[in-house]
Amino acid sequence: MLRLRRNFQHSRRFLLLNSFSTAAHPPPLHLPLSHPTYIVWGSNTSVGKTLISAGLASSFLLSDSPSHFLYLKPIQTGFPSDSDSRFVFQKLSSIYRRRHAPLSLLASDHVLNASLPVLNSISGCGIDDGSELAMCDLGRYEEQRLVGKEPGLGSRLICKTMYAWREAVSPHLAAERESGLVDDALVLQSLQSCLNSGMGASSEIEGAKSRAMCLVETAGGVASPGPSGSLQCDLYRPFRLPCLLVGDGRLGGISGTISAYETLKLRGYDIAAIIFADNGLKNEVALSSHLRNRVPILVLPPIPADITDDLMDWFDNSWSVFDSLKEIMLSAYSERLGRLREMPKKAMNIFWWPFTQHKLVADEAVTVIDSRCGENFTVFKDQGNEFMTQQFDACASWWTQGPDTALQTELASDVGYAAARFGHVMFPENVYEPALECAELLLDGVGKGWASRVYFSDNGSTAIEIALKMAFRKFSFDHGIHDTQESNAEAQRTELMVLALNGSYHGDTLGAMEAQAPSCYTGFLQQPWYSGRGVFLDPPTVYMHRGKWYLSLPVGLQPETLRFESALFCSRDEVFDEKRDRSDLAGVYSAYLSQQLSYSSKSKSLLGALIMEPVIQGAGGMHMVDPLFQRVLVKECQDKKIPVIFDEVFTGFWRLGSETAAELLHCVPDIACFAKLMTGGLIPLSVTLASNSVFESFLGDSKLEALLHGHSYSAHALGCTAAAKSIKWFKNPQTNQNINSEGRSLRELWDENLVYGISSHPAVKRVVALGTLFALELQTDGSSAGYASLYSRSLLLKLREDGIYTRPLGNVIYLMCGPCTKPDSCSQLLIKLLGRLDEFMSESRENLKSCHS
Amino acid sequence: MLRLRRNFQHSRRFLLLNSFSTAAHPPPLHLPLSHPTYIVWGSNTSVGKTLISAGLASSFLLSDSPSHFLYLKPIQTGFPSDSDSRFVFQKLSSIYRRRHAPLSLLASDHVLNASLPVLNSISGCGIDDGSELAMCDLGRYEEQRLVGKEPGLGSRLICKTMYAWREAVSPHLAAERESGLVDDALVLQSLQSCLNSGMGASSEIEGAKSRAMCLVETAGGVASPGPSGSLQCDLYRPFRLPCLLVGDGRLGGISGTISAYETLKLRGYDIAAIIFADNGLKNEVALSSHLRNRVPILVLPPIPADITDDLMDWFDNSWSVFDSLKEIMLSAYSERLGRLREMPKKAMNIFWWPFTQHKLVADEAVTVIDSRCGENFTVFKDQGNEFMTQQFDACASWWTQGPDTALQTELASDVGYAAARFGHVMFPENVYEPALECAELLLDGVGKGWASRVYFSDNGSTAIEIALKMAFRKFSFDHGIHDTQESNAEAQRTELMVLALNGSYHGDTLGAMEAQAPSCYTGFLQQPWYSGRGVFLDPPTVYMHRGKWYLSLPVGLQPETLRFESALFCSRDEVFDEKRDRSDLAGVYSAYLSQQLSYSSKSKSLLGALIMEPVIQGAGGMHMVDPLFQRVLVKECQDKKIPVIFDEVFTGFWRLGSETAAELLHCVPDIACFAKLMTGGLIPLSVTLASNSVFESFLGDSKLEALLHGHSYSAHALGCTAAAKSIKWFKNPQTNQNINSEGRSLRELWDENLVYGISSHPAVKRVVALGTLFALELQTDGSSAGYASLYSRSLLLKLREDGIYTRPLGNVIYLMCGPCTKPDSCSQLLIKLLGRLDEFMSESRENLKSCHS
Repeated sequence: MLRLRRNFQHSRRFLLLNSFSTAAHPPPLHLPLSHPTYIVWGSNTSVGKTLISAGLASSFLLSDSPSHFLYLKPIQTGFPSDSDSRFVFQKLSSIYRRRHAPLSLLASDHVLNASLPVLNSISGCGIDDGSELAMCDLGRYEEQRLVGKEPGLGSRLICKTMYAWREAVSPHLAAERESGLVDDALVLQSLQSCLNSGMGASSEIEGAKSRAMCLVETAGGVASPGPSGSLQCDLYRPFRLPCLLVGDGRLGGISGTISAYETLKLRGYDIAAIIFADNGLKNEVALSSHLRNRVPILVLPPIPADITDDLMDWFDNSWSVFDSLKEIMLSAYSERLGRLREMPKKAMNIFWWPFTQHKLVADEAVTVIDSRCGENFTVFKDQGNEFMTQQFDACASWWTQGPDTALQTELASDVGYAAARFGHVMFPENVYEPALECAELLLDGVGKGWASRVYFSDNGSTAIEIALKMAFRKFSFDHGIHDTQESNAEAQRTELMVLALNGSYHGDTLGAMEAQAPSCYTGFLQQPWYSGRGVFLDPPTVYMHRGKWYLSLPVGLQPETLRFESALFCSRDEVFDEKRDRSDLAGVYSAYLSQQLSYSSKSKSLLGALIMEPVIQGAGGMHMVDPLFQRVLVKECQDKKIPVIFDEVFTGFWRLGSETAAELLHCVPDIACFAKLMTGGLIPLSVTLASNSVFESFLGDSKLEALLHGHSYSAHALGCTAAAKSIKWFKNPQTNQNINSEGRSLRELWDENLVYGISSHPAVKRVVALGTLFALELQTDGSSAGYASLYSRSLLLKLREDGIYTRPLGNVIYLMCGPCTKPDSCSQLLIKLLGRLDEFMSESRENLKSCHS
Repeated sequence: MLRLRRNFQHSRRFLLLNSFSTAAHPPPLHLPLSHPTYIVWGSNTSVGKTLISAGLASSFLLSDSPSHFLYLKPIQTGFPSDSDSRFVFQKLSSIYRRRHAPLSLLASDHVLNASLPVLNSISGCGIDDGSELAMCDLGRYEEQRLVGKEPGLGSRLICKTMYAWREAVSPHLAAERESGLVDDALVLQSLQSCLNSGMGASSEIEGAKSRAMCLVETAGGVASPGPSGSLQCDLYRPFRLPCLLVGDGRLGGISGTISAYETLKLRGYDIAAIIFADNGLKNEVALSSHLRNRVPILVLPPIPADITDDLMDWFDNSWSVFDSLKEIMLSAYSERLGRLREMPKKAMNIFWWPFTQHKLVADEAVTVIDSRCGENFTVFKDQGNEFMTQQFDACASWWTQGPDTALQTELASDVGYAAARFGHVMFPENVYEPALECAELLLDGVGKGWASRVYFSDNGSTAIEIALKMAFRKFSFDHGIHDTQESNAEAQRTELMVLALNGSYHGDTLGAMEAQAPSCYTGFLQQPWYSGRGVFLDPPTVYMHRGKWYLSLPVGLQPETLRFESALFCSRDEVFDEKRDRSDLAGVYSAYLSQQLSYSSKSKSLLGALIMEPVIQGAGGMHMVDPLFQRVLVKECQDKKIPVIFDEVFTGFWRLGSETAAELLHCVPDIACFAKLMTGGLIPLSVTLASNSVFESFLGDSKLEALLHGHSYSAHALGCTAAAKSIKWFKNPQTNQNINSEGRSLRELWDENLVYGISSHPAVKRVVALGTLFALELQTDGSSAGYASLYSRSLLLKLREDGIYTRPLGNVIYLMCGPCTKPDSCSQLLIKLLGRLDEFMSESRENLKSCHS
C-alpha cells in the first residue's frame, strides 16, 4: 500500500497523489512460506476432494506434537446444504474422538461471505432489495473444543469458507443467478488475507514451523469457472500454490486425470502428488507409466457408495495412505524451500551473466524468480521470514515483454500446440502455417505499404547484420559497384560505410557493432576487432522538463539564423507534427545533412546505408531524437539512393504507442528490423523486412548471388506461432483495451499529472513518456553519469522494495509496461517512483554533505 | 515399400538388401485428402460420441445426391454387446426408413479382428490354446439394402470395427486380460489401409469428391489408453486427422471439455468443432467465452435417460444441429485444402529464404510441411490426387533435430509449462529454475572436467562471437597486453588473429565469419566487411572408401620421412585411438604445427585463439579431420597459452555418437560453444562454456571490465527447459535405447554392411559414418563440385519420392538421424539411398553420353 509521506514539497503533488484511489489496488502479493500450503484440485466433480482434505487434516493433526491446520474453501456453491469446510470440521471432530487423540484440539468452521439467497435461507426471512449485487458479510462461526489424553498445548483446526452461494451449480452460474458477483482480484485478496492471518495462532507455538499446514480446496474440476467466469486454474494462478490433484479411479478416469494434470501444467503449476479412490481398474498403473514416475500416485480404498455411511471405517482404512500423502507433501515443501534457498549461491557459482561484473554482485543481491504472471515476477524473499512476493517487471526483461496474464496463458497453449504439431522444421524452400501466417501479418502490419519480403533470423543483432548485407548489395547494385561476379575484385577495393547516429545501438555481434559509434562496448577490452565503419552524426534530441518539451541541438547544429521560439513545444504531439517540415529548422537540418553527405561522398569510402533507431535511442540512454531530423535524414538518403534501415528492434510493436515508430516519423524505410516484443516477449525471433527492390538485387542465376546468411532455427515454428498470436493480440481492441478507436495507437498510459510532477522534481533532469515507455534522467554531477555509474543504485533497491523491478542505464531510470497494461497500473508505478525520488534526493544530499565534511 | 530392382550390379548388395526384412516396415504414411476425414474424440466416456457419429452419418447420407460415408471404430471393447459400428449401422437404417430417404442405401457393418474370448463368445465353443497372443481374424459382415424413393445410383454406408475385445474396460486392460495385444504401428497400418481402401467404391461416383466423408471414432476419453497402453491422443498423432470433440454438458463438463481440448491441442491436433448434449447448465456459454469463439460449439437436445428409448425422436430433434455440424466440417475441410493449395505460391511471394536463390526455385518445388512427428515431416502432395505423406527429415532441419515422437510430446508439454510459469524473465543477476537446471546439466555433462561457467546466448554464431571475446581477453590477460584500462591505447595497436582450419565454418555474423577462411560466403557480394582475421591451416582428413579408412594429407604436410602404412586404418576406432599419439605421424604434425605457430608469432599480429570444429567440419562438406592432428594442435596451442575454442554447435550432444566430440578427441578446450541439438531441436538457444581461468580474466572493479555482450532473450526459460529435458533424455538409457551400457556413446546406428556397400559404390567417392551422421561425397568431374553445384539434385528428388528429405552440400549428400532413432530406421534410409545411387549413376552416364554425342 502506498504510505503517504509527510514531507511533501510540492502541494501539487500532494493533490495528485490523493487523486489516485489506492482502494482499487490490493496489497502486493505476499505468500508466507513458513509452512506448507497446497491447493487441492479435482480432475472432475465428485472425485472426493473434501474427503481427502479431511483425511489429510486428521493425519496431520493427530500427532504427538501441537499442530495447526488451516482448511480454506474459497468458493462454495449449494450452501448451506453443501459445506465442505463444515464437512472437514465435523469429520475431523469425529475422527479425533474415535482415535483418542493425544492432544486437545480446538476446531472451528467460519463462513465469511455469502449471497443474499444464502442469507435469506438461513435467516428465514426474505431480504431482497434487488439492488444488491455484491456478497454479504455472513460471519457464521462454530467451534468445538476436544480434550485429548494429554494435558498441555493443543492443536488447532481452522476451517473457512470464503464465499458461499446457494444453488448447487457452477460458481459463475450461481453468482449470476444470485446477484452475488465477486471479481477475481477480490477472491485473491481475501484468500491472501486468510493465508496470512488464518494461521495467526500458529505463532503461539514455539519453533513449530513444520507443524503447520494449509490446504486450499477448489470447487469442481481444474477448469471449472469461478464466480467471475474465469477458470479456477487461471483465477488462482498468481499464487501458483503447489498442487494436489485428486484423480479419478473410475472408467474413463485415466483420461480425465491426465487431461486435468495437463491443464494444470499448462498454467505453470507443480503437482506434488495425485491421489484417488480405487475402482478396481488399476488406473494408477497407466497413470504412472504415462507420467514416467515423475509424480507420486496414491490410491485410496473405494469410497462407500452408501451415502448414509459415516465413513469412519473408510478413514480408518485410508490412514496409511493419508500418512504417506502427508509425508510426500512435507518433503516436497522442504525440497522446494531448500532449492529456493540454495539458488542464489549456485547461480553466483556457475552463471556468467551478460553485462554483469560478477565481482560487484553480492549473494543477497541475486533475485530468485519463481515465476512470472503477466507483467509481474513472483520472487522469493528471505527477510528473516521467507515468503513469495511480486515485482512489476518494469525493465520489461530487456524490453521484450508485452503479455498480460491472459496473453501469457494463450501463448503457453499456442507454443505447446506448435511444439507438438511442428517442433521445428526446415525453412528454406518450404512453407508451414506459422511461418506463413507470421509473414503475412508482418507485411500487413509493420511492413504495410513498403515491405514485400520477410527474412527470419534469431535476434536483433542478426537481423541487423542481415539488413546491412541487404543494404550494401542494394547500394552496390544501384551504384554499379558490381554488375557481375567478375567485377568482384573491383568491388573488393570499395569500402562501404554506414551513416548512423551517435548514441545509437544495434546489437552485440561484430557486424552490428561496426555500425555504431565507439562506446564503452567497443573498446579493445570488449571487442578487439571493432573499428567503427561509419560516419556518426550527433542528433538533436527532445525531452520534457517541468511539463514542457525542449529541443537540444548538438554543437554542429547550433542555430545561427534560427529563431529560438521554434525550439520549444507545448505538447508531444507538436514534436511529431508533420507541419514542422515547413519550419526553418527543417531547412537547417536539410542543409546540414546535405553538407555531411556530400562531404562523405568525397572520401574514398562510400556511405552504403543509413541505419537508425527511429524516435528513441534505447540502449544509448532513452534519448528521443527529434523526429523532424530523422525524417529529413531519411529523405536526404533516399534521394541519394542510400538504402535506409530502421532498427525497430526496440521500438517496434507498440513500444512507443504505435505499431511501428516509423508511423510516428511519417516515413518508411527500405529495410527494417524487428525482434523483442514481436513474439510477445516469449522467445527469440527476429525479422528483417525488405522492399521488393532490395530483394531483387539478390536475384540471379547463381546461388552465389543469393543472400547466404541463415541460422539453424530460421523461422522456427514456436517463434512464428508466438509472434502471430502476439501481433494479433496487441492490435485487436477486443484483447487489448489500450488500442484507441482508430486502431492506430495506444491510449496514453502514463498519467499526465504524474508525468508533469516527476518532470518537475528537482532530482530529475529530463523525462520522456511515450507509449509503454517512461524514462527519466537523474540530475547528477559529471562523475555520476555514464553507463557504468552506480549512482541510481539506491533508488532502484528502494523501488524493488515497493514491488518494482527496474534496471538502470547509468543514471537513466525507466519504467516499461506492456501494450496491454492498464493505465491504472502505470499510475501506481509512477506514484511509487515519485515517492522514492524524494527519499533518494534527501539521501543524495546527505551523502554530499558527508563527503564535504 | 522398397521396390527391389532388377539390375543389381553387386551381388553382395543383393544379399545385403535381402537380409533386411521389409515386413517390419509399414508402408509410408498416405492419407487421402479427396474427401473430409475426421476423428471423433470424447471429453469423457459416455458423452455420446457414437450418437453423434450416427447423426452425422444420417445428415450426410440423407441427401439428394449419392453419398458415401465411412465409419471406422478402430478399437472396441465390451464386444459384441457393445458395438459402436453396429449401432451406427442399425440406427442409420432406422433413420433412413423413418425419413423416407430419396436415394437407396447399401449399408454394411464389418468387424475385422477380435480377441479369442470374443471369438469364443460368438462361436460358443472354447478355443483356448493359451499360446495365442495376437488378435484373430473375425471377418463378421452384415449388410442391408434400403430402397429409396428415387431410382438410380444409391448411397453407401460402410461401418467397420477394426479390433474388438470382450471386456468392457479400457482397451489396454482388455488387450492384456484377453491376450489380444496389438501394437501401435499395426493399429495405424490397419487404419491407413481402411482409410485408403474403405472408400474404394466412392470412385464409382463421378466427380463426387465432396460427397464422401469419413469418421474415425476413438474409444473412451482423449487420453484413454489404446491396446498397447499408449494414450489414444498419442497413438493416432502420426495421422493428425482434423478433430471433432464431443464435450460434456453435465455438471463439471466445462472443466472436462476444456481439459480434453487442451490435451488434444497439446498433441498438435486441430479441432473443427465441439458438440455436446445439453443438460440445462449452459456449458456452451462458458466454453465459448473461454475459447474466444475460435471453435464452433454446437448443443444437442438432452439425450433421453431411458435406455429403452429408440432415440428416433431425439435424432429428429437433433436434425438441424447435425446439419450445421456437417456444414462446419465440410467447410473446414475446404478451407484447409484451399490453404494447403495456396501455400506454395504465397510462400514464393513473401518469404525470403536463407541460402536460397529465389530465381531458381520453382513453385512446385516448394514443400508444404503440415506437421512433424518425431523424425518425420508430414507433407502435403498434389500429384493429380491430393494426399498427406511422410518424409524422414534426413537433413535434421539444419542439424538441429533429435526428438523421437515421445520426446516431441514431452517437449511440447514442458515448453507449455515453462511459458505458463515463466514466459521469459530477465536473466542478469537473477536466477530461475530452468536456467539453473540447464547450467548444472551442462557443467555436469558436456563441460564436465573443465568448464565452470555458462554464458547463454541465442545461436551458434553469437556463441562463437562470445567465445572469441572470451579468448581474446584471456589471451591479453595472460600475455600482458593490458593490465588496466589505461593501457587500452597500447592494446588498440595490437592486432589479434585466430588460428583456424581451412574448411571450417562458425556462423554467419561478421565476428564468426572473420574467424573462418575466405569462401563463397565471405566475398564482397555477401559481406563487404569481411577481411579474414585468421591464420588458416589445411587440415589432414580421413574418410572411408570401400570399407577402409584413408588419410588425406594436405600439400604442406606431405610425408617425406613417413612410412605410408600408417596412413591406412582398418577401422574407425583405430583412427580415434590415443595410441596414435606415439606414432611417427604425431611427430610430423607436431613439427609442422610448431613451425606454423612460431612463424605466426613473428608477425606483428598475434594469434589470440585457436578455434575449430572437433572431428567433423560440417558446413565445409562433412569432412572428418584427423583427430590426431586436432589433438596435437590443441596441445601446441595450450602450451603457448593460446586459448582453445571448440565449436561444438554441430558436433555436440551425441551428433557424432558421444555427448561431445571433445570426448572423441580425448582432450578438452578452454572455451566451447553448443547450440542446435541442445534444445532437442525445438528452439534457438546456445551456450558458451568457459573454464574458470577464462572467467577470471573478466573480473575487476568496474563494470567496463565485464563481458558486455548479451541478447534480449538470454537464458530464456523455454529454451533452458527444452535443453534440460533433451540433455537428460538423450543420455538416459531408459528414454534413449541407443545409449550403450556405459552411457558414454551411442550404439552403431548405420549398418556396417550397408555402409560398406555404399562406400564401394562406383558413384561414391568417400563416406563418413559416425554417430547420427552418414555422409557421402559423389564422384564428380571438377565442374560439378562445390557449394553451388546442382549435380546431386536429381538424386535428392528421387530420395524425396522415397520419403527421405535431404539437402545437399554441393556434391556431398548426408543422412542425419536423431540420437534416439532406431538403427532399423537408419537401415531403411541406407537401403533406399543405395537403390537410388544405381539409378543416379546410370542417369549420369546417359547425360554424359548425350553431352558427348
